[in-house]
Amino acid sequence: MVTETTKRYCQGYKFVIYSLYPFTRSATVSVTLFETTRYQQLAAEFARAIQDGTWPAGSRLPAIRRVAAAQQLSINTVLSAWRVLEDRGLIESRPQSGYYVRSVLPAPEKIVAYRATVAAPGQAQLDLIDTVFAAQNHPDYTNISLACPRDGDFYPAAKLARITASLLRRNPQMIGRYALPPGSERLREEIARRASYMGMTLTAGGITLTHGCMEALQLALRATTRPGDCVGLETPTYFFLFPLLASLGLTALEIPTDPQHGLSLDALEMVLSEHRIQALIAMPGMQNPLGCSMPLENKKRLAALMNRWQVPLIEDGLYDELQDRTPQLPATKAFDRDGWVIYCTSFTKTVAPDFRIGWMAAGRFSQAVARLKAFSSMAEPMLLCETLAQFLANGGYDRHLRTLRRRYAANLDEARGLIGRHFPVGTRATRPQGGFVFWVTLPEQIDTVALFHRLLQEKICVTPGALYTLSDRADHALRLSCCYPFDERYRYAISRAGALACEMSGLPAGADGP
Amino acid sequence: MVTETTKRYCQGYKFVIYSLYPFTRSATVSVTLFETTRYQQLAAEFARAIQDGTWPAGSRLPAIRRVAAAQQLSINTVLSAWRVLEDRGLIESRPQSGYYVRSVLPAPEKIVAYRATVAAPGQAQLDLIDTVFAAQNHPDYTNISLACPRDGDFYPAAKLARITASLLRRNPQMIGRYALPPGSERLREEIARRASYMGMTLTAGGITLTHGCMEALQLALRATTRPGDCVGLETPTYFFLFPLLASLGLTALEIPTDPQHGLSLDALEMVLSEHRIQALIAMPGMQNPLGCSMPLENKKRLAALMNRWQVPLIEDGLYDELQDRTPQLPATKAFDRDGWVIYCTSFTKTVAPDFRIGWMAAGRFSQAVARLKAFSSMAEPMLLCETLAQFLANGGYDRHLRTLRRRYAANLDEARGLIGRHFPVGTRATRPQGGFVFWVTLPEQIDTVALFHRLLQEKICVTPGALYTLSDRADHALRLSCCYPFDERYRYAISRAGALACEMSGLPAGADGP
Repeated sequence: MVTETTKRYCQGYKFVIYSLYPFTRSATVSVTLFETTRYQQLAAEFARAIQDGTWPAGSRLPAIRRVAAAQQLSINTVLSAWRVLEDRGLIESRPQSGYYVRSVLPAPEKIVAYRATVAAPGQAQLDLIDTVFAAQNHPDYTNISLACPRDGDFYPAAKLARITASLLRRNPQMIGRYALPPGSERLREEIARRASYMGMTLTAGGITLTHGCMEALQLALRATTRPGDCVGLETPTYFFLFPLLASLGLTALEIPTDPQHGLSLDALEMVLSEHRIQALIAMPGMQNPLGCSMPLENKKRLAALMNRWQVPLIEDGLYDELQDRTPQLPATKAFDRDGWVIYCTSFTKTVAPDFRIGWMAAGRFSQAVARLKAFSSMAEPMLLCETLAQFLANGGYDRHLRTLRRRYAANLDEARGLIGRHFPVGTRATRPQGGFVFWVTLPEQIDTVALFHRLLQEKICVTPGALYTLSDRADHALRLSCCYPFDERYRYAISRAGALACEMSGLPAGADGP
Repeated sequence: MVTETTKRYCQGYKFVIYSLYPFTRSATVSVTLFETTRYQQLAAEFARAIQDGTWPAGSRLPAIRRVAAAQQLSINTVLSAWRVLEDRGLIESRPQSGYYVRSVLPAPEKIVAYRATVAAPGQAQLDLIDTVFAAQNHPDYTNISLACPRDGDFYPAAKLARITASLLRRNPQMIGRYALPPGSERLREEIARRASYMGMTLTAGGITLTHGCMEALQLALRATTRPGDCVGLETPTYFFLFPLLASLGLTALEIPTDPQHGLSLDALEMVLSEHRIQALIAMPGMQNPLGCSMPLENKKRLAALMNRWQVPLIEDGLYDELQDRTPQLPATKAFDRDGWVIYCTSFTKTVAPDFRIGWMAAGRFSQAVARLKAFSSMAEPMLLCETLAQFLANGGYDRHLRTLRRRYAANLDEARGLIGRHFPVGTRATRPQGGFVFWVTLPEQIDTVALFHRLLQEKICVTPGALYTLSDRADHALRLSCCYPFDERYRYAISRAGALACEMSGLPAGADGP
């Protein structure tokens, strides 16, 4: 039985939908309501609309004020309705941004690689890397593959440009001075200061500036291993680590990594106790490609394990400052008792992608790493380092980071929502707590390398999961990156990837279905 | 018998000396002349003055016009006298700069290292490198050690600053775009164009941009060797190659290198025929630390040898564009038939020390090198690359190079002259055909590491020869660098180094003596 009052609400509600959300499906909303209070009625109406796809996963609900006005309800009533929906796991609030429809995509399953492998990637994998890279560089392609924006205004470029120009005006001779290690003291001081926000107590003297995070990882490996050694990796892991290890004469042992909680510490402890690895590379926060983060307790246990077994942990903290929570979760390095953790990160994903200024704090390997840097690539340009230092000191870095996190979080939700609607039944995806990359597994019969090539013909670039492990356990996975302004072009790219996957598998769309 | 006319000349001559060269020794010039023509008399007078040190090695003779006016002679008479002195090897003309007193310092002897050595430098050598580096970085020290200016206006910094600022004004978003390999096409095109001046036919696609020359060498080694391999090196060679090789699990074989003509090709051929090395690193032009250059014929033979034995030559061309001759001598790479030569160089010594933009053309290893670069340190900043490209295209690079070469050549001569006067009898030094570093050997009893430490106490930084070889054959050598405005401070530093060496050895000063 629908009362007159409810009818009026419904009409108001429909009005809200059509005026605020132009992409609603054509199906009319037929609602039968048995709830007695107004807020329960409202919650039920929205629950149905969410379940039938009128409000898809990732979409933002209209502002409470507008709903209240349109439906002639009090703010508190709408708020109560929203709380009901939140309790039911249908929506979630995002600080300073509003309420969003949650995606119910399940988490992917863990990849368990069962033996140590020679790290050398095959020719097919190397060729695939080349193809992916070339496509990522192509200006005409829609890029949901590259883990850094190629367009848009995600970074404080104008502000940095002003600082650079002002430094050059005051001291053009800077360009004519030889960049020598250890490089800009001011930048290293700013880094040490900021590292305290992640629980790390560092000094400028203990920090080595690097040419991005990639070089930091490379130096860390060279400082801690010798050719013939075996290195522990998460699985899946950043694909460039395989050829890097191979080029240094190292072998890889892939350690199971949970798509929700990160590296399996039980598996790691077994590996350590068998003395099978001489170093471990892990990304405890916003792991690439999974997007997952280790819980705080796991980080503590990880640091303790590495210190107990005296095996260096190379902690890749590339996305740490992009974690979508306040206060920030400390780095594993924060719990490093005896200097066995080498923290590596960069400003390429947070401030200045073109500068490629990274840094590392190498604990007991600090001197070795500083020396390696000097005879491997000497130093970083003072002009760029000083620009960065000035920006960190008083450029509004924290405000910028907050904006960035919000944008990426919204992008991630929207992307997950699109996948839920357009990807085949059985698709799963991780739910990152920050950063902008996540991991999607499709039903097993879908070969994502084939999907990658088909999408490339349509100028859409994704990254096939096969790149991220030497096993064949990710042949049906994709890593997607959501670090661009989410416009129709990107929405189309994701939905098109889903449509092709449906076509290839004969499965219907609707991974996020009821 | 001294005629009245000669007396008048002599008085005029003395006048010239005192008015133009305030640092003349107190000894009076007593000249006995038997020459009959005026130009011969003038030549004899100056020859004596040069030999008794009134005109020290490296000093510039007064302008011909002024001598002619002071002595009331014709320009042609003075010119004829100068030709006599030139024929006797006492002076030399330098284009657009005048006539200079030549140093007669003999060339150092060849270091013959007789066996392959593990490349790992000892702790003492590593510590010495650290000490040298710290001293080079010290703003209060007089630096005749660092192979790049720390002060002065040697580089077109203001012009580069204007280009950078203009690029930033037009496109600040450049900073917000991720630097991806292969990087700035425009810069690679400019590099390919300029490489033709050194006889190399390259394409933009075959060039990999690197983080300075050091990274190019590192990547070249990693692309051509595997851990356990042995690499041929010149001896002495750039000291950072030892820890670099060691860090990659490589051993070193030091091949004799002549301080005048560079790498001994006979020794190399023997080594190649015995299959003892998997790659060779050499610096055929303006070798560091010797300063010597291989004659053209040797470069051709070197390229032919490497191609015949199919062993990669890693050609370090860091100073090639600073060679003090026109036209430039081609690189060894110019004679590379089958792609076995990997040419590595950088703009750090010629244009923009702070930018650290280097490049390599790796022949048959091009793809391997490009991949290594991507997963070792990704790419170079577009902002700096585009600045450089624009400068190369229309910034007056060639004019700048000409100025730079002239300044460095004058510095080298002055430094050699100072060494000739102040260093102990028995000191020898190389005579570079470009660049700004040269090699000095002192009498064998002088330990240059001890000398280095004593000079450091007086805030003077030199580089001891022991750094440049794993043998003990350079314990009495120094590498000096003359890449700064040559003022009293630097003159004092060199003379003080000589005075201390005399004190340590008990030998008199006057390596350049009659």
